[in-house]
Amino acid sequence: MYIIKIGGNVLDDPERLQRFLIDFAALLGPKLLVHGGGKIASTIGLQLGIEPAYVEGRRLTDAETLKLVTMVYAGLINKNVVAQLQALGCNAIGMTGADANAIPATKRPVKTVDYGFAGDIAGPETVNANALEALLQAGLTPVFAPLTHDGQGSLLNTNADTIASVLATALAPHYEVKLVYCFEKKGVLADAEDDDAVISHIDQHRYSSLKAEGVVKDGMIPKLDNAFAALQHGVSAVLIGEAEALPSLATAQGFSGTTITLKHG
Amino acid sequence: MYIIKIGGNVLDDPERLQRFLIDFAALLGPKLLVHGGGKIASTIGLQLGIEPAYVEGRRLTDAETLKLVTMVYAGLINKNVVAQLQALGCNAIGMTGADANAIPATKRPVKTVDYGFAGDIAGPETVNANALEALLQAGLTPVFAPLTHDGQGSLLNTNADTIASVLATALAPHYEVKLVYCFEKKGVLADAEDDDAVISHIDQHRYSSLKAEGVVKDGMIPKLDNAFAALQHGVSAVLIGEAEALPSLATAQGFSGTTITLKHG
Repeated sequence: MYIIKIGGNVLDDPERLQRFLIDFAALLGPKLLVHGGGKIASTIGLQLGIEPAYVEGRRLTDAETLKLVTMVYAGLINKNVVAQLQALGCNAIGMTGADANAIPATKRPVKTVDYGFAGDIAGPETVNANALEALLQAGLTPVFAPLTHDGQGSLLNTNADTIASVLATALAPHYEVKLVYCFEKKGVLADAEDDDAVISHIDQHRYSSLKAEGVVKDGMIPKLDNAFAALQHGVSAVLIGEAEALPSLATAQGFSGTTITLKHG
Repeated sequence: MYIIKIGGNVLDDPERLQRFLIDFAALLGPKLLVHGGGKIASTIGLQLGIEPAYVEGRRLTDAETLKLVTMVYAGLINKNVVAQLQALGCNAIGMTGADANAIPATKRPVKTVDYGFAGDIAGPETVNANALEALLQAGLTPVFAPLTHDGQGSLLNTNADTIASVLATALAPHYEVKLVYCFEKKGVLADAEDDDAVISHIDQHRYSSLKAEGVVKDGMIPKLDNAFAALQHGVSAVLIGEAEALPSLATAQGFSGTTITLKHG
């Protein structure tokens, strides 16, 4: 099965989103979509007088911001994606981690920074995989907004990449899972200045070399570390590429972005 | 099974909502909740510069209002109810009529008034009862926000009473369904001035008399007409009472509000 994460840059562009959803709906077999936030949350937040605050690239989620992201992520974005997928013949069901108790989490403990209502997921073993399997077996396609819950009545704002990775790992014992991250580049690049210099395949050995050579650096390192962690926990492949690469999943040439596996083969 | 509609007056009062959810979570067997809107949508709408507009008591749903109710009904209200039910041990899953294609509808045709993105449901036969049954059999409790979809990518604002009635009728071939409307009174009153003068039971014969005597009038007539229509289509009982009457469903005395059945029995 495919677990696909789509980021805010696509959600912010209605035409690009529509093309992506057409490609997603056309994928055969069981599948699951995780979407991020997008600029619309900040825009609506400003209208409501909620100023976005960040520390080290992470949004602080105070009580007002939690209301905002619940409205925008779980309401506006999630339900419009679901309605659009339904129009494309994909029987989507929109969810957060609170629905069906799919993803229990813990409010991030305050150390030096109080991130507010930010949720950390203990691990894939906390995911309610049975409920997700029941939905998938009923022919439904879960569409996740990036929210979890603490089991005590509060929703929690949670990173969409993390949700995708945890769901992929939790479902790996039940399905052959390919985890696909759609982001703003065509894949992992051999040359940061050349958008077409996509490295088509990275295994653990190659990853060590790429890091040693300084080709892979900065923000790509945690992304790839997470990818290898998912692979070590049973996910069969992690694919990184742009939203437009989705149709290439089904071609004989394979995925046009970067495919990540533990071993070459 | 119970299908329970809870109105905006309870949703607007956090303590009353919490007490209601405790009672709802305690109900045994399969169950389903439908919630209305509440004043919070108008409050947030005003902050966003969206003035509510009504014609004959029905809210007009222009494109901006549709965004607003999608955020507030399907996001803020629905997901907080789900998170609170999860904390009470009830495995809730929040939905709109777009999710799992549960309730397809049609944009209301423009005659003298253009209601905008308001959805009319053709009938219970359009409900995706199979998907709802799969969710119920997986031990999940669907929680519906008052939105449907047109199958062409657009969400539609739809009356919560109607959604509850259509779902009850659609599930009647599969379950013995009791449809419960929680509203602001203790039940149908024999004397509009006496809040405790609850008529405990109304059948078709009694309903004719009550109408002839002028005891039942105005807004209660369409409510009861709808109730009898549901009963004629297989719903086993329709109950009307206040949110606080929920625990009385399980007592030997039975429901403390008004129970409506086709025949006395």
